[in-house]
Amino acid sequence: MQDFASDNYAGVCPEAMRYMVNANDTGHEVAYGNDSWTKQVCDRIRTLFETDCEVFFVFNGTAANSLALASLCQSYQSVICHELSHVETDECGGPEFFSNGSKLITSRGPLGKLDPVAVEAVITRRNDIHWPRPKAMTLTQSTEVGTVYSIAEIRALTDIAHRHGLAVHMDGARFANAVASLQVTPAEMTWKAGVDVLCFGGTKNGLPVGEAVVFFDKARAEDFAYRVKQAGQLASKMRFISAPWLGLLDNDVWLRNARHANEMARRLAQEVASAGVKVAHPVQANAVFADMTPATSAAMRAKGWVFHDFIAAGGCRLMCAWDTPEALVERFGTDLRAATATA
Amino acid sequence: MQDFASDNYAGVCPEAMRYMVNANDTGHEVAYGNDSWTKQVCDRIRTLFETDCEVFFVFNGTAANSLALASLCQSYQSVICHELSHVETDECGGPEFFSNGSKLITSRGPLGKLDPVAVEAVITRRNDIHWPRPKAMTLTQSTEVGTVYSIAEIRALTDIAHRHGLAVHMDGARFANAVASLQVTPAEMTWKAGVDVLCFGGTKNGLPVGEAVVFFDKARAEDFAYRVKQAGQLASKMRFISAPWLGLLDNDVWLRNARHANEMARRLAQEVASAGVKVAHPVQANAVFADMTPATSAAMRAKGWVFHDFIAAGGCRLMCAWDTPEALVERFGTDLRAATATA
Amino acid sequence: MQDFASDNYAGVCPEAMRYMVNANDTGHEVAYGNDSWTKQVCDRIRTLFETDCEVFFVFNGTAANSLALASLCQSYQSVICHELSHVETDECGGPEFFSNGSKLITSRGPLGKLDPVAVEAVITRRNDIHWPRPKAMTLTQSTEVGTVYSIAEIRALTDIAHRHGLAVHMDGARFANAVASLQVTPAEMTWKAGVDVLCFGGTKNGLPVGEAVVFFDKARAEDFAYRVKQAGQLASKMRFISAPWLGLLDNDVWLRNARHANEMARRLAQEVASAGVKVAHPVQANAVFADMTPATSAAMRAKGWVFHDFIAAGGCRLMCAWDTPEALVERFGTDLRAATATA
Amino acid sequence: MQDFASDNYAGVCPEAMRYMVNANDTGHEVAYGNDSWTKQVCDRIRTLFETDCEVFFVFNGTAANSLALASLCQSYQSVICHELSHVETDECGGPEFFSNGSKLITSRGPLGKLDPVAVEAVITRRNDIHWPRPKAMTLTQSTEVGTVYSIAEIRALTDIAHRHGLAVHMDGARFANAVASLQVTPAEMTWKAGVDVLCFGGTKNGLPVGEAVVFFDKARAEDFAYRVKQAGQLASKMRFISAPWLGLLDNDVWLRNARHANEMARRLAQEVASAGVKVAHPVQANAVFADMTPATSAAMRAKGWVFHDFIAAGGCRLMCAWDTPEALVERFGTDLRAATATA
Repeated sequence: MQDFASDNYAGVCPEAMRYMVNANDTGHEVAYGNDSWTKQVCDRIRTLFETDCEVFFVFNGTAANSLALASLCQSYQSVICHELSHVETDECGGPEFFSNGSKLITSRGPLGKLDPVAVEAVITRRNDIHWPRPKAMTLTQSTEVGTVYSIAEIRALTDIAHRHGLAVHMDGARFANAVASLQVTPAEMTWKAGVDVLCFGGTKNGLPVGEAVVFFDKARAEDFAYRVKQAGQLASKMRFISAPWLGLLDNDVWLRNARHANEMARRLAQEVASAGVKVAHPVQANAVFADMTPATSAAMRAKGWVFHDFIAAGGCRLMCAWDTPEALVERFGTDLRAATATA
Repeated sequence: MQDFASDNYAGVCPEAMRYMVNANDTGHEVAYGNDSWTKQVCDRIRTLFETDCEVFFVFNGTAANSLALASLCQSYQSVICHELSHVETDECGGPEFFSNGSKLITSRGPLGKLDPVAVEAVITRRNDIHWPRPKAMTLTQSTEVGTVYSIAEIRALTDIAHRHGLAVHMDGARFANAVASLQVTPAEMTWKAGVDVLCFGGTKNGLPVGEAVVFFDKARAEDFAYRVKQAGQLASKMRFISAPWLGLLDNDVWLRNARHANEMARRLAQEVASAGVKVAHPVQANAVFADMTPATSAAMRAKGWVFHDFIAAGGCRLMCAWDTPEALVERFGTDLRAATATA
Repeated sequence: MQDFASDNYAGVCPEAMRYMVNANDTGHEVAYGNDSWTKQVCDRIRTLFETDCEVFFVFNGTAANSLALASLCQSYQSVICHELSHVETDECGGPEFFSNGSKLITSRGPLGKLDPVAVEAVITRRNDIHWPRPKAMTLTQSTEVGTVYSIAEIRALTDIAHRHGLAVHMDGARFANAVASLQVTPAEMTWKAGVDVLCFGGTKNGLPVGEAVVFFDKARAEDFAYRVKQAGQLASKMRFISAPWLGLLDNDVWLRNARHANEMARRLAQEVASAGVKVAHPVQANAVFADMTPATSAAMRAKGWVFHDFIAAGGCRLMCAWDTPEALVERFGTDLRAATATA
Repeated sequence: MQDFASDNYAGVCPEAMRYMVNANDTGHEVAYGNDSWTKQVCDRIRTLFETDCEVFFVFNGTAANSLALASLCQSYQSVICHELSHVETDECGGPEFFSNGSKLITSRGPLGKLDPVAVEAVITRRNDIHWPRPKAMTLTQSTEVGTVYSIAEIRALTDIAHRHGLAVHMDGARFANAVASLQVTPAEMTWKAGVDVLCFGGTKNGLPVGEAVVFFDKARAEDFAYRVKQAGQLASKMRFISAPWLGLLDNDVWLRNARHANEMARRLAQEVASAGVKVAHPVQANAVFADMTPATSAAMRAKGWVFHDFIAAGGCRLMCAWDTPEALVERFGTDLRAATATA
């Protein structure tokens, strides 16, 4: 199958798979993260972020986000998120479950981004005992609609959050795509801009399984290892979760993968536009939202193309992955032009 | 490092790793378990168990046990387990967390096994509103002390449980070792003996990550997929969790791995005994409990041997893995005899 | 103090207080609800509802609603509620806490009422694993903005809910006001109209403390007593929670109290309108929403009047209680006319 | 009915009931604890404890204990309690529910009391990631078997707890009986002896409903009001929960009630002993454990006496209340002597 359905449909990039295999060559290793591979990867991530952060590996994005938010927020407090954010729309209540009831309070904003004025209004709307006080803000970088917050936009939001006593979480399921897009350093886009905790996505970037939770404020990481363990997120043979990260980190493969996906999305947007179909948002990462008519999307699916509708975000969602071939992008364009011509 | 510390210190068996690599060769695949590999593995597991069971993959044993128990038991009910069981002693409150408060009620019994008389006494001890009514019983096969329930012993326990309205969960982190030991079929040791839900362990048997939760009573599996998703246990690129199972299932590698570990444990027990050190329990699976004196264990560790104390279970715990070399067993024996001779 | 701030500011009606005192005259009584008073009240409530329902007493409305919803909905499922509903806006995440994470999905509708079309759209919007499936619908009768669902409106909503497998909960914190308003029987407004569980409010109707949870579908009440106990809602000396209900039930004092509050609200609305201030909603129960200018509300507060802003619901909220004196209503009118005249 | 079944079977003492009635005479009062009565009671409790503590009212003992412990302990941590403690044996998993999974770790000790050596052994037994680290210790004063910790015993336990970073909770469901027994001040028995949080029981001492949670370490009380609200424990008409406390606090009625119950228990123990029935523990509060034979207890029940078996604690549990008449005690003695004489 080839498709634009999800960057999760892609496989593992060869560099990551090589480390998966290599990690098996060191024979027995201590379990639960005390192995040589995991230590090495944590150090490499600290180097990447140019700071002495705390790094934890968990199995997937729902767990990473939910556990990170639960560590920032008691059950009787709340989290401010965008109404289109993954934590709100696609984690089946995971954040509420892990936190035992923290309420997600949605805020709106154009381009899938939180708006500072709207966020401050939400924070200050109420301060009575009957309403769970906001204690964390989460922003997704790159966003669910394929846009990217600028550093200044991040800073504006984190300033407001911190001024009101909220911690800042970044859902970085597509962190690499945002870094590649902005051409900044990981440090600039996170702790230097006021982010307290980052969920650094590996799976969509080319890993088989696993995300990293990175605490820039080490005090907040106290006891997080216990939280991870209790929640069933501590891998026994952790080297097989951590070692593949080396495949991404060596020679900046993570950036290469992200740049490729972003570039394919840029090209795909051109193809979409060339067919007379509106692209709903600026294409700043690896997603394209094509506002096809029902007839057009049906015609494309009839030709075997696989993609999802995401009406709330502006149309059909077309995701590019680290391995999307340019030829596929072109073929999609050809088919789309044909579909719109006959419609 | 070579050691007898844990069967989690071992790597991945080559057959499983081959499928990990192969699963990457099919290009893009649908995410979240709707891929071709996962369907195939589920069917193979159904064949293995000779019944139309429901199969779910989760990331580790704590999650498998906790989610399975949570599906059997409301927060205001309780689970009967052995006082040495992993759910009680080594999951950092995972079962209580996933169930939002179900109490684990421990029962005793020799050889790490639940005793039917004691279990029935626990079940019938109270039936007032102030005490969480037992709704599930969990038994570990093979047990934490390396023994194995006979089919008749399992049947006696499941009969009592069912008579009182409790569901039966089997923690099969070392399920393969028990099947190999008893020389029965997986079906005989589970649903034919009254087990409702099995956590079928893959990691200790040679996988990199992942366990299967198998519901023999399909009605109990209703909505379990949602439970898995919310709890952060649904892999997006699930084929990399599921496909390696084929490496275990082809040609009964899972049994071969277990038989080897069991055989190494049997040999190791001989070595231990030959050094005049008492073996605390019958060696029926892949664990040996060696009742070394502190001086002896210190001497062994000084020679570089790595293993854990597990005093409550009778001494130093020595675990054999799917890849434990016989030469290592013999070298341990040689060193142990030397250590006890000089003590 | 006299005020229109809340029907919770009122005290206990004399008939209820008399039973509080009387319940103390029977000496020792069995605890935890097995006393003679509680049995009597449960029977009286069954008579009132003309059906063999199950009745439980809990301490307050947040607990009543949260426990009832938790019994209808697993953590990975969701509850549809109006965006202005108390469960959403004023229980500090109680429903999410008691259910361990069930998501509240808000729906809109004029007059504080759920709209059948909108509700059905919410129910059918998604059915994938990443979104918590709706399993319960809650409607508030009378609503947060002082309106009342007609029997036909309730029936339309419960039909949709049941067609899609959702259970129906009614938040009846002001149940009495709605019955008085519609001039129907309690049965007609609940189980005959498709309500599965009712939280029957006593506190706002004249009790010191305590609400009743009434299950019309007895199967759903199984084990609810354990849920209540675990959640710290089982009164030991329960007669002091239950007996005062007799004061409400004898001679339909509950209806008399509600009718008085409703009538005072109707009168108050006339006063508000006579001052040229818009009344935001039809006054069908005991609330009046007066769309005062900031200058007017400030002037009224300067004269000592106490009431809350509730902008989302259309203005200043003025609540009448079972004991609101007509003279107070008139005085409020006089002051309001003076305030608007000078504004 | 007259009985020795439970101090919860008793009604409300007249002084408390008078305040219940009086609190209704002040007309409308602000809700949720901002009323004049509640402020007054909080100040009176601060005076009683001779310190600037934080005071919260909740509805019952299960909620008081569970919320207090949840505030001291994260879900992945644990609470050390006596194996006979109410939190372990009679709250239906309430502490686990409110904390979302904190494990109760039981410890043994004679006379229903925690033993310092055993407690320290439990605390230091493990410190690995797979075991929930103890973060709180709870002791019950007076104990479940009617004994009382001396000040020195409390101090020994709190010293160990604090040395290891655990907070100390006192379950004072029968706090008054212990103060009366020891003839010390409330301050001496709590914060001066190292207690961080006290659940100060009112119900068993003569109130209709309600317990106070008293934080001596005010920093620990931060946000506790939100916790109470979310958990459905915030009374709207709180004056009816708080004002009756004035009936206990005026003229030390709380102590008078406790002294009477204690004295009746002392007398009852004499009667029991005079019948040749062994009293299982020193009678230091309001409980007597009579080690009757089955025949004797059956004979007594045949005569209409109501009491509970509590075999784990040494026999039939006989509780005296604030209103137990001396004549009843004597009649019990007479009947018991007759029963044993004929046995």
